[in-house]
Formats: sequence, structure tokens, C-alpha cells
Amino acid sequence: MENDQDAPAATDSEPGVSSPAKPCSRPGVIAAAVYDHGRRIGDIEIKDAHTWRGRDKAVVWIGLHEPDKALLREVQVEFGLHDLAIEDANHAHQRPKLEIYGDSIFVVARTAHMAGAEIVFGETHLFVGRGYVVSVRHGPSTSYNLVRQRCEASPASLALGENYILYSILDFIVDNYMPVLEAIHAEVEDLEERLLRERLDKKDIERLYMLRRSLLRLRNAVVPLVDVCRRHEHLDLPGMDASLHAMFRDVTDHVRRVQEDIDTLREVLAFTFEASLMIGQSEQTEISRKLASWAAILAVPTAVAGIYGMNFEEMPELKLPYAYFIVLFFIFFVCGTLYRLFRRAKWL
Amino acid sequence: MENDQDAPAATDSEPGVSSPAKPCSRPGVIAAAVYDHGRRIGDIEIKDAHTWRGRDKAVVWIGLHEPDKALLREVQVEFGLHDLAIEDANHAHQRPKLEIYGDSIFVVARTAHMAGAEIVFGETHLFVGRGYVVSVRHGPSTSYNLVRQRCEASPASLALGENYILYSILDFIVDNYMPVLEAIHAEVEDLEERLLRERLDKKDIERLYMLRRSLLRLRNAVVPLVDVCRRHEHLDLPGMDASLHAMFRDVTDHVRRVQEDIDTLREVLAFTFEASLMIGQSEQTEISRKLASWAAILAVPTAVAGIYGMNFEEMPELKLPYAYFIVLFFIFFVCGTLYRLFRRAKWL
Amino acid sequence: MENDQDAPAATDSEPGVSSPAKPCSRPGVIAAAVYDHGRRIGDIEIKDAHTWRGRDKAVVWIGLHEPDKALLREVQVEFGLHDLAIEDANHAHQRPKLEIYGDSIFVVARTAHMAGAEIVFGETHLFVGRGYVVSVRHGPSTSYNLVRQRCEASPASLALGENYILYSILDFIVDNYMPVLEAIHAEVEDLEERLLRERLDKKDIERLYMLRRSLLRLRNAVVPLVDVCRRHEHLDLPGMDASLHAMFRDVTDHVRRVQEDIDTLREVLAFTFEASLMIGQSEQTEISRKLASWAAILAVPTAVAGIYGMNFEEMPELKLPYAYFIVLFFIFFVCGTLYRLFRRAKWL
Amino acid sequence: MENDQDAPAATDSEPGVSSPAKPCSRPGVIAAAVYDHGRRIGDIEIKDAHTWRGRDKAVVWIGLHEPDKALLREVQVEFGLHDLAIEDANHAHQRPKLEIYGDSIFVVARTAHMAGAEIVFGETHLFVGRGYVVSVRHGPSTSYNLVRQRCEASPASLALGENYILYSILDFIVDNYMPVLEAIHAEVEDLEERLLRERLDKKDIERLYMLRRSLLRLRNAVVPLVDVCRRHEHLDLPGMDASLHAMFRDVTDHVRRVQEDIDTLREVLAFTFEASLMIGQSEQTEISRKLASWAAILAVPTAVAGIYGMNFEEMPELKLPYAYFIVLFFIFFVCGTLYRLFRRAKWL
Amino acid sequence: MENDQDAPAATDSEPGVSSPAKPCSRPGVIAAAVYDHGRRIGDIEIKDAHTWRGRDKAVVWIGLHEPDKALLREVQVEFGLHDLAIEDANHAHQRPKLEIYGDSIFVVARTAHMAGAEIVFGETHLFVGRGYVVSVRHGPSTSYNLVRQRCEASPASLALGENYILYSILDFIVDNYMPVLEAIHAEVEDLEERLLRERLDKKDIERLYMLRRSLLRLRNAVVPLVDVCRRHEHLDLPGMDASLHAMFRDVTDHVRRVQEDIDTLREVLAFTFEASLMIGQSEQTEISRKLASWAAILAVPTAVAGIYGMNFEEMPELKLPYAYFIVLFFIFFVCGTLYRLFRRAKWL
Repeated sequence: MENDQDAPAATDSEPGVSSPAKPCSRPGVIAAAVYDHGRRIGDIEIKDAHTWRGRDKAVVWIGLHEPDKALLREVQVEFGLHDLAIEDANHAHQRPKLEIYGDSIFVVARTAHMAGAEIVFGETHLFVGRGYVVSVRHGPSTSYNLVRQRCEASPASLALGENYILYSILDFIVDNYMPVLEAIHAEVEDLEERLLRERLDKKDIERLYMLRRSLLRLRNAVVPLVDVCRRHEHLDLPGMDASLHAMFRDVTDHVRRVQEDIDTLREVLAFTFEASLMIGQSEQTEISRKLASWAAILAVPTAVAGIYGMNFEEMPELKLPYAYFIVLFFIFFVCGTLYRLFRRAKWL
Repeated sequence: MENDQDAPAATDSEPGVSSPAKPCSRPGVIAAAVYDHGRRIGDIEIKDAHTWRGRDKAVVWIGLHEPDKALLREVQVEFGLHDLAIEDANHAHQRPKLEIYGDSIFVVARTAHMAGAEIVFGETHLFVGRGYVVSVRHGPSTSYNLVRQRCEASPASLALGENYILYSILDFIVDNYMPVLEAIHAEVEDLEERLLRERLDKKDIERLYMLRRSLLRLRNAVVPLVDVCRRHEHLDLPGMDASLHAMFRDVTDHVRRVQEDIDTLREVLAFTFEASLMIGQSEQTEISRKLASWAAILAVPTAVAGIYGMNFEEMPELKLPYAYFIVLFFIFFVCGTLYRLFRRAKWL
Repeated sequence: MENDQDAPAATDSEPGVSSPAKPCSRPGVIAAAVYDHGRRIGDIEIKDAHTWRGRDKAVVWIGLHEPDKALLREVQVEFGLHDLAIEDANHAHQRPKLEIYGDSIFVVARTAHMAGAEIVFGETHLFVGRGYVVSVRHGPSTSYNLVRQRCEASPASLALGENYILYSILDFIVDNYMPVLEAIHAEVEDLEERLLRERLDKKDIERLYMLRRSLLRLRNAVVPLVDVCRRHEHLDLPGMDASLHAMFRDVTDHVRRVQEDIDTLREVLAFTFEASLMIGQSEQTEISRKLASWAAILAVPTAVAGIYGMNFEEMPELKLPYAYFIVLFFIFFVCGTLYRLFRRAKWL
Repeated sequence: MENDQDAPAATDSEPGVSSPAKPCSRPGVIAAAVYDHGRRIGDIEIKDAHTWRGRDKAVVWIGLHEPDKALLREVQVEFGLHDLAIEDANHAHQRPKLEIYGDSIFVVARTAHMAGAEIVFGETHLFVGRGYVVSVRHGPSTSYNLVRQRCEASPASLALGENYILYSILDFIVDNYMPVLEAIHAEVEDLEERLLRERLDKKDIERLYMLRRSLLRLRNAVVPLVDVCRRHEHLDLPGMDASLHAMFRDVTDHVRRVQEDIDTLREVLAFTFEASLMIGQSEQTEISRKLASWAAILAVPTAVAGIYGMNFEEMPELKLPYAYFIVLFFIFFVCGTLYRLFRRAKWL
Repeated sequence: MENDQDAPAATDSEPGVSSPAKPCSRPGVIAAAVYDHGRRIGDIEIKDAHTWRGRDKAVVWIGLHEPDKALLREVQVEFGLHDLAIEDANHAHQRPKLEIYGDSIFVVARTAHMAGAEIVFGETHLFVGRGYVVSVRHGPSTSYNLVRQRCEASPASLALGENYILYSILDFIVDNYMPVLEAIHAEVEDLEERLLRERLDKKDIERLYMLRRSLLRLRNAVVPLVDVCRRHEHLDLPGMDASLHAMFRDVTDHVRRVQEDIDTLREVLAFTFEASLMIGQSEQTEISRKLASWAAILAVPTAVAGIYGMNFEEMPELKLPYAYFIVLFFIFFVCGTLYRLFRRAKWL
């Protein structure tokens, strides 16, 4: 998937800069390239990044995946990142947030994608400052290579600089929530249909429970991101083109739409719970009524047969002709009448 | 319903402008007309729209329905619309919102109307700027031809320009929520009556569930619209007549009333759920009591008959005269007493 | 009830003004009088209202009840009211609100009063401006004649002008919520007592349900009114005496107290629901235990009698002397023991 | 308890002022004293209060309990209180609030204390202005004599003037919530223990219900008081010493702590409700299982004995030797096996 | 654990100051040391603390554990602390808060740690001002000696002064919430697994109940702390280095993450409750169905045998050859058919 390595020796035609001769094959480094006016100059070594930073319109874009401490430290020195941000980036499980350290910003976002039928959550940390973007992925998440390819395909946009890259990555992260949401949606609809067609069995309840947990987790990823995106909208970063504000607003809108969908699904599942309780209760009542009805009907032969099964010497009915058949008929008649009565009362 | 096409060649008497000779019969274009001082000048081709834009008091009003990309692109070029707004307009499923791009605004609203007994949701995107209004309908929704007719019927108001058209459309959308709300209202009252008269069966629970979902969906359409309308109230658009503020305030008020009604109905359905649980439980208890009572009553003949049905050689009672009748009487007496006792305790 | 008509030809001693010779007997007009320095000058015709408007310290106070369009139109022309406000006033079912049109205000409030054991809701629209108050009642509501009498009784206060009248009407509306609240309160306490003494039957559940609906409706009337009153407190209307601010604050306080009471009652009813579920469940368990206990006890004679009722040829016990009595004693002994055991375990 | 009357003729050594010769023995007046520089000068008559008001550092502190209208009227005249405040003070059932009338403030607070095992609620109204504090108690509440004694014991603090007295009373009111809260706390813990040890019977459910109502009432007293206290913190009253701000902040903190405790207890009771439902359901299931198990076990002898109790002529088993014992053994064996199976499945 | 006492006579090389010859062995005093430019000068007596306060870059750091009133009084005099703060510090059970008294601040935080399988809560009060930090621990809590050691290990940071110490302690407190949260998390997952694998028994419900209470308590500790930390972020204390703002922001972030986790767990437990209700109901229905099915099946032999056990003289079937076997077969056939039918309907 990460085919930066497969594209060796990009155009390093720029004179007077450290030539990024070899592609970055270091573990933890997924890609490291430098762009000028939106055009890819070539891959670079992290230690050479600073030589590009001062140059106008040049952006260094580095993608890391679960880097070790030494690598992070090198990146920190190269771009002058804040200790606390690096410490956060070192271990996952941060809340999605946007922090400003001087004139650089640190963004944490949670990613989600489907791995087969499973929802998989990851975390991405982004360091963005004048002339650089460093993305650090933790846990299982989609590579941002696709974002890189799309950006490279539209140099005019990429020329807007690091903030455009940041926008592209955030947009990509939010886009990736969609299939997850759709998968949950499909599950919810399936459950709904089962609920209304028959009723939820224990397996369904387990699925319902798991859906609620997944939604909760997705919500925890998305809700703080709304705030992050909204702050981006109003952020007055140096070198931030006005046209970017509209783009960030678009992402905000997108992520809020995701949040709205999550909240709707959560409420639907709450309705499902309540409807399931009602259906369960209704069913229970129906069974009780059936049980009671049959108990009543069957009590007739039991009582009558019990009485005529007694061994008293003097029981004149026992000797009457046809008494047995009369009694049999009587039993059937009473049972039948009861049956019709229960039927009419909708107990049966 | 869309009879703009049936009204060919409106008065194109205005000299010096591209003559809108033929009515717009292009697929996706429902209507495209130009108005001057609130008076309809005639139909135009979209490509001629820009010739009208500079003229004071002239408004181009175009109505599209699920346009293809080419058509949208043409509209974009003609009115200089923002890329992101066009991208949003291209696919439905946006959140209701109001976005400002320079001196033009982009509004998304969700529509709802009854198609028979079914609630049908649609989406409308509106581009409004100096001298033009473009409406883009997605999904099944009522045409805005009726709005157009009403506007044309009051040229004085229409002379207020594009913001008046925007107001008219929003007012129409909000008005259309009413029959939907009333249909839900009638359903809720029907359910309520059934609940209190007898009790909800499985079919009713399904209806209740579906009502809650519909209300949720309607709420998702309405709640963000409150915000859109409120922002309109305070929007200081160029060429926005002061009298329009009061109109937009009226729409806000209207949509908030709709929201209040939705919330009330939601709460009523929650009460219905709770009352249904209580009634169900109460009924269950009643059945259990009845079952227990009859079981107790019928245990008497069973036990007595069982005992006198034993085959012991020495059972003196069996030989007593009238013993059988005494026992029969005893059984009936005990059963009757039990019956009266249960009756008094309201178990039967 | 409306006895303005019975007080014909009030003092029309004011020279140089159109003499309000005849009392207003027009349908829809309940009362129309003019006051100067808090003193009633006399009844007027609506068409003469404007002659009074310019005069300092004079206030025209008109009371309408479900006026037809023509009448409203006349009032509109006379006082220069806004189209949208008139349109709202034309049909009921507005949200309680306060709107400012230029230097006049439009207030909508919902009224509630007891008609026998029933709660009846109405709506009042108020137009207040320099020198006039017009009240429009919709639906069943108490006449404001009482307010008028009280105001006329304290000319010093009435001399404060139209805002004092507005305050008096709002105060009256809020005062009228009290008996409604008290009636609901009494019902809730009755239900509560029944719940804790025995348990709620289906009729009680219906009452509980209806109470919740009434509270919801009352809440919908009251909550937006809090906002209306609070805005009045801070309204800087022309000719608004400082002392009126304290009065409006008092109304705000009053209506918030009503809201607090409503919220408390709502919560109490929610507790009632939960307590009812618990009691119902507890009762169900008790019945199940009783049922199970008696089933166990009665299984003994059934089983024993069944065994000794078998027709095997070789059943030695059957021939033993006193076997029958021993078995009888055995049955009674086991049943008694079981009974004591269940008693001790509190199942019986 | 009110022993001001028992301390006759306090030091009225101050020359040139109306000598407060007799202690106030008027009904409704609990105490009325004047303080100078924190030192008690002596008791006064209410009608003489105004002679002290102008003097710097002198404070008149009057305590009333359910005064009649005449007394309130006299107080109003003496201190120039606002009509609306007096009207409010006249009848209880106000919301806790802080109102500012010119340079005097009017405070309403709800009090609570334990009277035996019962929670008793009262209401206190406070009028505070330059040089005076008037407290009006309604309903059953603890006298503020204790506050007076404490204040008199620290003249340095009391010299801070009327705001210090106000602080002392509010602090006292909030302190008095504590034992109430502790009593509820003890009840909740008792219920909790009962719930987890056995299960809640109807009496416990009633207690739970009553606890929830008490907490609701206490909450209604406390929550608006938080706001009152917070406003006090920031109030810039004339003659308000800076050190008082910290004191009022302390009361705010205290009352918020009370609110937090109330909210915690409310949530605990909600958990109790839910746990009780779960335990009840679990118990119900257990009983049903037991019932079903025993029914199954006892069905064996019933069925077998029934079959061998039939009177067919040709039933070969009946004549087999030992058949009776074999059948008996068979019955016991099957019953025993069933019992073991149900035991293993934890149904018994 | 408190090994300050074990490190006797630290470097008291600073000339001209009261020599802190003996380590503080006074009960209640855990540690008392003075630092200059981040370097430990030595232990001091509390009474000598003031001699250090004026000196630039010197910080006195005193750690107390449940001090008596005399000790607190001494500390108050030494550092000029506010009466109310000292009063608060005197007894535990304060809400977490941040109060500013002049140029010193008073912080209350609740601590939590695991003591075996139990969660143990404590309380810490912090007095921080120019040149001093006093920590007062109440109840069982971890000593801050570890914080002291860490601080001493990085003199550069400690040279930032009292605010750095405050940050370190808060960071430590928040860090200590983590294992508590993890322990609860493990319990919740265990319960979850049990719920979905079988179902919750009474013991599990008790655990669930206790978990909810623990989370509630932890939440009460954490939520107000978020506010405390956020206020620290923006606090402009004298001598507060800019770099500290970022540190406090980091703590805020950390404590908000804890809060989010608590809220998630609370919601998960609420889902658990609902799922448990559903599973319980589903199980109850299953048992009822089984019971009803077996009752129906077993009613057949009972009814048939009852009938052929009657003692009528004329019952022709009794004399038919093979009648007994036919009846037996009939019983088995009907029972078998019923069994299959119930099986197919999934009642068995």
C-alpha cells in the first residue's frame, strides 16, 4: 500500500539543496518528501528537513507510523517541536484536540475504518508549522498515501502549503468514518427488521449491545473533532490562505453531519431497546393468557374425572345407563364453550 | 404541476437584452425567469443569466431539479459560485445550514411532505446572491412553482429582490412541515386512544416505533433550520430591505413552533411507552392473580377426589350413606367460599 | 360577565374629542375605553381611537375576542400595526413570544384556567404602543374585565400608561395558572396516595397519563413566557416608568415559580411511574411465590392419592389396617410442614 | 429559645437617642436591637429604628416571625422598603432569590431542618440596607437567635455592618441543611443495604419514593440559593467590606457542596431503582425456574399413577408380581434424575 | 514511604540563614525543605520559613498530613494565609476548587488510588504563593514524596518555582486516577462478558451497583478538577513562567481524558443495565414458553387417564381387547406430536 518506496529517486533537480538521493527506507518512516509551489521535489532524509524550512513556498511532508522514541526525537529537533506535544505523540490514547505551541499546531484525531466486519480504531497526531507537516499514525489505520497522491495530483491546491495538507488529511479522516457509519447503519436496520418481524433473541441483544458500544466509541472519536475542526475554521495561522477557511468549514460541516448521524443511530437503538421491552412484555402477557386459558379448559376433565373416579359405594350416577357418555359429552361441551369464550376474549 | 413550460414565450419586451425566446425545456431545469422591479420579464437560458446580473432591481430566479454535473457547472460559472458549495449541491444528504461565501449565501434545507400515508423527505439547496436565486431540489419534494406564482402575484413584495424570494421559499418549506406534523399527530392520538381503551398489540408497537423514527427524522430536518432562520434574521446582506428582517423573524418563529410541536409529540410518545409498560405489567399481574385463584379453587376437587379415589381396603367414609353427596357438597361449598374470598380481594 | 356594556355612557366630559356616545356593542369588541391620567374618560368607537393617540397621558384600551378579519384590519389601520403581527393575531396557535415592531410591541401568551374539572387553554395577543393597548383573546379564556376594573380602581398606577396595563394583564394571566396548578397538584397527591396505599389500576394509569399530558401542555404555555417576561424587565420602551421594571421582574419571578412547580410535578410523576413499576414487580413476585408455594403443597395429596389409586393387584399397603388413616395423616403432616416452611421463608 | 426578652434593659448608655427602655414583647417581633461598632447598644422599638439609620457604623437588626400586615407595614415605613418586596414577604412560597431595590436588597431563602425523623421546610425573607437588617421567618424554622449570639460574641466582625449579618444568616441557613442531608444519607445507605442483602419490599419502595421527594424538595431550596450566593459574591453594595466577598464566596462554595451531595444522592437512588428492577427480575426468573422444575418432577408420579389408575380390564402389568414396586421405583428414579438435572442446570 | 526523615542534615551550606539543622520530625509534618534555583538547600523548621520568603528564586515546600490545628495555625502565621482557607483545610470534605486570596491561591483536589481491590479516596489542600507551597493531605492518599524526588531530579524545571511544584502535584494526582480507572475498566469488562455469556446473578448486580457508585464518586472528584485545571491554564500569577501555561494545559487535557473515560464507562454500565433487562425478559419468556409447552403435553395423559379412571358401570371401551394399549399409544402419539409442534415453534 505504501508505494513511496517503489517510486525511487524522484526529481531532485533543485540545485543547491541536499540531494534526497535515496528514498526513506527507515522503519517508522512511511514517506518524507519536499514540495515546492505544490510540485514534488523529491524524497528527503529527516535530518535534511531543516534546510528546506526557511524557503518560501516549500513544504516538507513527513509521514510516520508508530515511530520509536529516537525517530520522534530527531523530528522534534529538526522542527523545534514542543516537549509536551512530543510526549503526547509518544503514546497513543490522547483525546482529539488542537493545541497551539507558539506558531506551530499539534492536532490529535482518532481514525476509524472497517477491517472486514470489524470496526478498527486508530489515532493520528499531526504537527503542522511554517513549511512542514508531520503525521504520526498509531494503531491500525489507513495510510495517508492516498491523500499524498491526491494532493500531488492538484499542485495548485498543494501550493497553498502546509495548511492545505492538514485540511486534506482531516478531510480524509472524516471521509473514512462514512463506511464505518454505513456498516453500523446496516446492522441497525437489520436488527430493527428482526425486532419488528419476530423478536430479539439473546444473540440479537448481544449485537445490539455491541452496536451501542461501537457507536459510543465512534462518538468519542468524532465529538471532540467537531471542536477541533471548528477551531481550525477560525484559526489565523501565518500563511493561511483565506480560501482555506471555507475548506475547513466544509470539514466541520462534514464531521457535524457524522455526529448527527451517530446521535440519530444512538436514539434509534434506544427506541429499539424500548420497543423490545414492550414486545417482550406483550408476548409474555400473551403466553400467560394462553397458559391460563388451557389450564382452565383442562381443569374440567380433571375435576369431573376425579369426582367419578372416587370409590364411594353409593354413587347413583355411576349406574345410570349412558351416564359415561353423558359425562363425556358434558366434558367436551364445557371445554368447547370455554375455548370459544377465550377465543372471543382474544386470550387464545 | 410544473406548468412553466406550458406558459411559453412570456413577455420578452425588454429591449437590448438577449431575448429568451424559447422556454427552458432542458432536463433538470424546472424554471428560469428574470424579474425586474417584481415584474416577470420572461424566461431565459441559463447561459444568458449574467447579462441580467448587473442591472439594478433585476433578479434571475432559476429552479433546478436533480441537475447533472454539467448543468451545475454552467450555473456555477454564470453566477460565480464557490466550488465547495457546488460540490455540496452535487450530492444530497447535507445538514441544513447557511454558509456565506463572499457576498453570496448558500442555504441547505430539508423538506418533508406527505405522499399518501407516507412521509417523504427531500432536500433543497439555495444559492442566493446579488440579483439571482438558484434553487436545487433533490429527492422527492414539492416544486416551488407555487411559490413563484405567489411571488409573481405580489410584484410589490417581489421587488424587494432575491432575499424576498429566499424568504418565500423558506416560508413555503416550513409551511409544508405542517401537514406532516398533523398526520403524525393524528397517528399519535389514535395510538393513545387504543392504549387507554385496551392495550397496544404488536402492530401498535411497530407503529409507535415507526412514529418515533419519523419524528426523529423530522426533527433532524427542523432543528438545524431554526438556526439557519435565526441567522437570516440578523444577516446584513447587501440590498436587504429592513422589512425583510421581520419576515425572516416570522419564519424563525414558525419553525420554532414546529420544533416545539415535535418535541411535545416525542415526549407524548415517551409517556405512551411508559404507560404501556405500566398497563402491561398491571395486566400481567391481573392474569397471574386470576390464574392463581382458579388454580386454588380447582385444587379442592382434585385433592378430595384423589383421596377418595385411593384403593385402600379400609376406608370407612366410602361406605357411609350419602357420603358421596356430602363430599360433593363439601367440594362445592369450599370452592364457592374460595371464589367469594378471591372476589372480595379483587383477584377475580 | 362582560359588563362594560351594562355601564352605558361613561363620563364623556372631555371637550373637543369625538364623543363616545354609544358603548361598543359590535361583535368581537368586548370593551374599548380611553383613559387620561389613569381616569376613565369613556367608551370609544375603534375608528375614533387615533384622535386620542397623540395626547400625552391618554391611553386607549381595547379588548377583542375572536375578532373577524375586518375588525382586526380596522384596528391595524387605526394603530398602524405591522402586517405580520396582524396575520399572527388572525389565527391562534402561536408560540408565546415578544416581538418588537418599531416602537410598538406584540406579545403572545397562552392562558389556562379550570372549567369545572377540565383544564382549558386559550391564547391572548397583545398590541402595545404609545398610548394604546389592544388585547385579542382566542379560544376559551377568562375575560380581562377584572383587570380593567382593578386598574380603574387605582388611577395612580393606571396613570403609568400602556405598560402598566400590559403588566396587569400578564400578571393576571400568570395568576390564573395557579388554580390549574393546584388542581393538578391535588390529582398528583391523590394518585400518590393510591399508589402507596394499594397500587395503580388501569384507570389510575390513565389519569397519570393524562396528568403528564396536561403538565406538558401547561409547560409549553409557561416556559416561553418566562423569556417574554424577562425581556420585558429589560425592555427600554418609550415612556416606560422605572417603577415598572420592578413590576415586570415580579411577574418574571412569579412565572418562574410556576415553571419550577411544573417541573417538580413532572419529576414527581416520573417517580410515581418508577415506584409503580417497582411495586408492580414486587407484587408479581409475591403472587408467583404464593402460586408456587400452594402448587408445591397441593402436589403432595395429588401424588400420594394418585399412587394409592393405582389398580395393581399386589399393593400390600392397601390391605394394612389403618393404612388409610396413616396415609391421610402423612399427607396432612407433609402439607403442614411445607406450609410452615414457606411461611417462614415469607413466600406465604 | 428566644431569650432576648429575658435579657431586659440592655445597656442603653448611648446619649441623645430614643432610649430603648422596654424589650420588644410585641407578637411577631422576636428581637430588635441596635449595634454600634459591633457592640450591642440595646433593644429598640421598631418605630424608633429610623433614628439610628443615619448614624455611621450603627446597625439595627430586627427579627420577625410570621408578622401580621400591620407590623410589616410599620417596618416598611421605617426603612422605606419597596411595595413589591413587602408584598412578597407577606405570604410565603417564594422562590429563593436576590432582588435589588435601589440601594437595599431583598433576599428569599428556604430553610430546612430535622424535626425528629421528619424534614421540615421553612422560608426566610431578608431586607438588608444601609444600617439595617430585617429577617422575616415563615413556617417552622430555627430561630436566628443563635446567629445573633455568635455575632455579638465577635464584635470585630459584627462591626463590618449589615452585610456581615446577612452573611451570618445565610451561612447559618446553609449549615442547617447539613443534618438534613445526613439524615437522608443514612436512610439511603440503609435502603441500599437492604436492597443488596435481600430485596426491597413495598414498605421500602414507599421509603425510597419519599426520599426522592424529600431530595427534590431540598434541591428546590438549594439550587436557586447557589445563584443567590454567587450574586452576593460579586455584589458591590455600599459599605461592603472587601473581606466580605471572600466570606460570601465561602457560603457559595458550601451551598454548591450541598447541591453536589444532593445530586449524588439522587443519582444513587436512581441506581437503587434500577438495581431493584434487575434484582426483582432475577428473582422472578428464579421462581419461575423453580416452579417449572417442580412441576416437571411432580408430573411424573401424576402421569404414571393416572395411567395405572385406569380401569381397563386388560392391563397386563397390573397383574405382574412386584409390578407395583417396580413402578414405585421407576417413579422415584425418574424424579430423582430430573431433580439432579435441574440442580446441575441451576434451576433448583 | 516518607523517607525525608531518613535523609538527615541536607546541605545547609547557605550562609546567613537560620540553619535547618534537624530534619522535621514533628507529627503531621511529612517534609519541609527549601530550594534555591531548583537546588535543595536543606530541611527547615516551619517557624523559619518566613526568613526564606523574600529571597528571589527560593521556594519553601512543606508537606503536611492531617495536621492538628496548632500546626495549621503556625503555617498560617508564617505564610499569611487567609482565615477561610485555613478553616477549609482544617476539615476534609471540600469540593475540588481553586480560590484566589490576594496573591496566593488555595487549591482543593480529591485523590484516588487502589488499596488492594478497593478504591480509596483522599483529599489534598494546597496553599501556593510567592516562594512557598504547602500541601495538606487528608485521609488515605499517596504521599507526595515521589513528586518531590522527581522535582529534585530536574533542578532546571524546579527553578521555575512554586507554580512548577503545583503543576507537578496536580499532574501526579491526575496520573494516580489512571490505575483506579483501569481497575474499574477491568471489572466492567468482566461484568460485560458474564452478561453476554450467561446472565447476571444477584452477586453481579451488586457488583454492577457498586461500580456505578464508585464511578459516581470518582466523577465527583474529577469533574470539578477539570475546571480547576482550566483556570490554572489562564491564571496570570506573579512569577508564572509562560512555559507553565502549556504544562497546565497538558494536565487539563489529561483530566478531561479521565472524565471522558468515566463518562464512557458510566454509559456502558447503563447499556449493561438495559441489556440485562432485555436478556432477563427474554429468558423469562423462554421459561414461560417451556412451562406452557410441558404443561400442555402433560395434560394429555392426565386427562385421558382421568377419564378412563372413572368408575362408571357402563364404559364399553374398558372391555375392548387391546383398548389399554391403544389408549397408551394414543397418549404417546399425541404427546409426541405436541412436542414436535412446540419444537418447531421454538417454544421448546
